[in-house]
Amino acid sequence: MRFLEKLDRCIEQNNSLVCVGLDADVSHLSTDQYSFNRSIIDQTHDLVCAYKLNSAFYECGTIDQLKQTCEYLRSAYPHIPIILDAKRGDIGNTNIAYASYAFDYLGADAITLHPYLGSESLEPFLRREDKGCIILCRTSNVGAKEFQDLFVDGKPLYQIVAEHVMVWHSEFHNCLLVVGATYPEDLQKLRQIVPSMTFLVPGIGAQGGDLEHVIRYGLNKTGKGLIITSSRAIIFAENPREETQ
Amino acid sequence: MRFLEKLDRCIEQNNSLVCVGLDADVSHLSTDQYSFNRSIIDQTHDLVCAYKLNSAFYECGTIDQLKQTCEYLRSAYPHIPIILDAKRGDIGNTNIAYASYAFDYLGADAITLHPYLGSESLEPFLRREDKGCIILCRTSNVGAKEFQDLFVDGKPLYQIVAEHVMVWHSEFHNCLLVVGATYPEDLQKLRQIVPSMTFLVPGIGAQGGDLEHVIRYGLNKTGKGLIITSSRAIIFAENPREETQ
Repeated sequence: MRFLEKLDRCIEQNNSLVCVGLDADVSHLSTDQYSFNRSIIDQTHDLVCAYKLNSAFYECGTIDQLKQTCEYLRSAYPHIPIILDAKRGDIGNTNIAYASYAFDYLGADAITLHPYLGSESLEPFLRREDKGCIILCRTSNVGAKEFQDLFVDGKPLYQIVAEHVMVWHSEFHNCLLVVGATYPEDLQKLRQIVPSMTFLVPGIGAQGGDLEHVIRYGLNKTGKGLIITSSRAIIFAENPREETQ
Repeated sequence: MRFLEKLDRCIEQNNSLVCVGLDADVSHLSTDQYSFNRSIIDQTHDLVCAYKLNSAFYECGTIDQLKQTCEYLRSAYPHIPIILDAKRGDIGNTNIAYASYAFDYLGADAITLHPYLGSESLEPFLRREDKGCIILCRTSNVGAKEFQDLFVDGKPLYQIVAEHVMVWHSEFHNCLLVVGATYPEDLQKLRQIVPSMTFLVPGIGAQGGDLEHVIRYGLNKTGKGLIITSSRAIIFAENPREETQ
């Protein structure tokens, strides 16, 4: 099953657009990352549309915990999509190795990617048509404007990226965009430019994005098209039912 | 010692601008990656200005071999800079974890980075002023032009990136640019725009870049300013002295 189909089914089944991030810094935990993740997963699996695992927090010697988490998800909750947040992007030959890491070694269903080297470089990801390619477009950080707002043909670069990715998507049928909740007007504008594409939306919560605005202006015509990522997974773990009501 | 100073000393000591890539695909080796790397290192340590290790080729379960290689380099040849080719770039909080992976866990001296999220996001790297931040500018792949040649204020985006990175460099004194040998006129142009910055130059050899052109137009006024990466490490290993004469 294609990533986007798996995602839409999980959105419907759990009636949720929330993607819980499994990104805990191991130095803040009293347990290992896998046990911590498993506890969050077991308490939230009926509340989410996906899980997002950030590779950065496992690369200093605990990728086995990341792999174990993916394996647990695939065996216990195979209907829930796994997003690897890795923000990779290299020349094609190297991207073959990165695609292998994300999709074969870890068994993720989708990965976040940088656009800067163009679609030719990203083909090792794009050609895995069952997997999702989530391309950075308008990121949530305060310094995002430095390059993303540069004007190209009268439009900011992030909009040009969205237009290009829409073309890739028309060929490979597996592209999504990262669109930060911290730039609400840009999210609204992007929904006009790419009416049906799915957005991965970080920036709600600690970064200050407004959930209501994202829902109002970000949904596509099917009432989906959003994956709203939460960095507040720890709260879910501590008291999931209260937090999500 | 700062990365750029360490690099320049090694360029002088070995009279070399060659950076050997330690990027062997484990499936093509009859030995483990660490042993293979160590053999290349021991045969080339007096011929190189740096080693570049590509994280992608170790992430499917052999990061310990990458770490061992870095440890060997630091203990046996501490004067040779270690470049981690990882092409990372995320929001600041995540970049703290990636910087820790590159500089603390592996002990690399420099890392390759994506510019798309801007300098604010890259501060966890930039503020490590003893470490090198090698920013993607004009990449060597055939599809590089899709975004990098978009015109911004009458100039291609890759030139704008170079100008921004020059500003970062004036603050942090630790920035370099990736400039592919496969776009010789662009390399020449960039040398005019940023006369003193150091370029990491991939694309010689298999990708078709011309070494003579890179040397003629890429050197800065000190006769340095280039790190010429070679993907032909296997040849070095098989017959190092013949290959490099």
